[in-house]
Amino acid sequence: MKIARFRTGRRVAYGVVQGEEVIEIRGSIYTRFRMTDTKHRLEDVKLLAPTEPTEMWGPGLNFADHLEYAASVFENGDKAPPLPGHPEPWVKARGSLTGHEDPIILPRDSSGEVHYEGEAVAVIGKQCRRVTPSEARRFILGYTCGNDVSDRTWQNQDWTFWRAKGADTFAPVGPWIETDINPQQLELIVRLNGEEVQRAYTKDMLFTFSEIVSYISQQVTLHPGDLIFSGTTGVTRALKPGDTVDIDIPGIGVLSNPVAEEFDASAL
Amino acid sequence: MKIARFRTGRRVAYGVVQGEEVIEIRGSIYTRFRMTDTKHRLEDVKLLAPTEPTEMWGPGLNFADHLEYAASVFENGDKAPPLPGHPEPWVKARGSLTGHEDPIILPRDSSGEVHYEGEAVAVIGKQCRRVTPSEARRFILGYTCGNDVSDRTWQNQDWTFWRAKGADTFAPVGPWIETDINPQQLELIVRLNGEEVQRAYTKDMLFTFSEIVSYISQQVTLHPGDLIFSGTTGVTRALKPGDTVDIDIPGIGVLSNPVAEEFDASAL
Repeated sequence: MKIARFRTGRRVAYGVVQGEEVIEIRGSIYTRFRMTDTKHRLEDVKLLAPTEPTEMWGPGLNFADHLEYAASVFENGDKAPPLPGHPEPWVKARGSLTGHEDPIILPRDSSGEVHYEGEAVAVIGKQCRRVTPSEARRFILGYTCGNDVSDRTWQNQDWTFWRAKGADTFAPVGPWIETDINPQQLELIVRLNGEEVQRAYTKDMLFTFSEIVSYISQQVTLHPGDLIFSGTTGVTRALKPGDTVDIDIPGIGVLSNPVAEEFDASAL
Repeated sequence: MKIARFRTGRRVAYGVVQGEEVIEIRGSIYTRFRMTDTKHRLEDVKLLAPTEPTEMWGPGLNFADHLEYAASVFENGDKAPPLPGHPEPWVKARGSLTGHEDPIILPRDSSGEVHYEGEAVAVIGKQCRRVTPSEARRFILGYTCGNDVSDRTWQNQDWTFWRAKGADTFAPVGPWIETDINPQQLELIVRLNGEEVQRAYTKDMLFTFSEIVSYISQQVTLHPGDLIFSGTTGVTRALKPGDTVDIDIPGIGVLSNPVAEEFDASAL
């Protein structure tokens, strides 16, 4: 089942996507809901980021090939760091969350090295604390597509990822949540202006979603709607104003975002 | 004016604290409100963390004397890092937020080096983006007390502060917000079981609250209720079950929290 959050007129609602339609639901996507008689054509609604999370989490480097890339662009020169023995969670500042078709805005004082990172994203469905990896799965509602937009210069300079990965609009997530899919058997394709620039497989994640959720939950209570990114793979490229970046996970959907320059009010 | 958030029966309300009473308000503390005729004795309500933030922020090392201490306990041995040229913001995982008199729970798998960090905390009052330090002040509603509880072992081992400073209950904040106070002229006293263990002055902050808010706002929109910690000073000590730690800022109030062991359901 595909669950979307959307705006219709001035209302925000959740619904179930079927074909080219979204059927409004009544109730909570996290507990119990039923479909109503209200339907919209998808093209008539504005899809929003599919949840309102308490927090968004990344797992640290979670694909072996991205470790090599990270080593080549960051301080330690060409020496790849050792494979981590457990996830290295980090918090993606929540204000950066944005939706399908919303613009990724390049900060006007960025160095120009703002990269896409195509990822799968798990959506927490029920509050959990100190769950095991095998228990974790039943606390996950489903999976969606995410773009962990990252300014490589800030990522290298700063002590934390606060702006490198947390600047406004740096977390497009969507277009909706797929509840019936095997999260470790996903293919993920990134297209930049229609050209395929990345192809990855969640079977190559060093830690599965269940292992990441379990690990974080040892110290932090996870809440319904919290988002857990998969980590990214391989080599990434810089975005330019006018670009469009698509994160395509067959079986889930395509998250597509245009790239725009920041409007500089002070330059008028 | 002192603004508190509290539970009375099954309701959550905001109110203005006057002496031993809290007067319920109608409206929003961030826009416009008026006092109602409903009063409670403070001892009859449960004070809650004074806001529901989108995000909580720390400034990185923000007192020169804590830099020396940090150098002595962390990896770089006894060599103090250079004074930062700008704030080094980090996100304190929002789920760690807790209130006055709520227990700080020591995780059962912590190394035992869970320390208090007494701090002043600015409360954002209006949404802001790309404000200057001189503009920042009017986006701040007021100030409260905070305890940036930190597991020193995790802080040293992990790539990020996710659990070192983000574990459940590691962010006591309260007891209320004081709106009329000079934030850079505060004295801050920490007491552990009644004994003074820390005394600091916000005039010694390397970056003022206005400078920190301005710096973060360059890349991240700050929202009403967001909390900005001051950073801590000097040397800190480990907490034990049964301790009580007080963060006392004259002119604001006293944030007091007991310390408890984590209940281990699996040990029954």
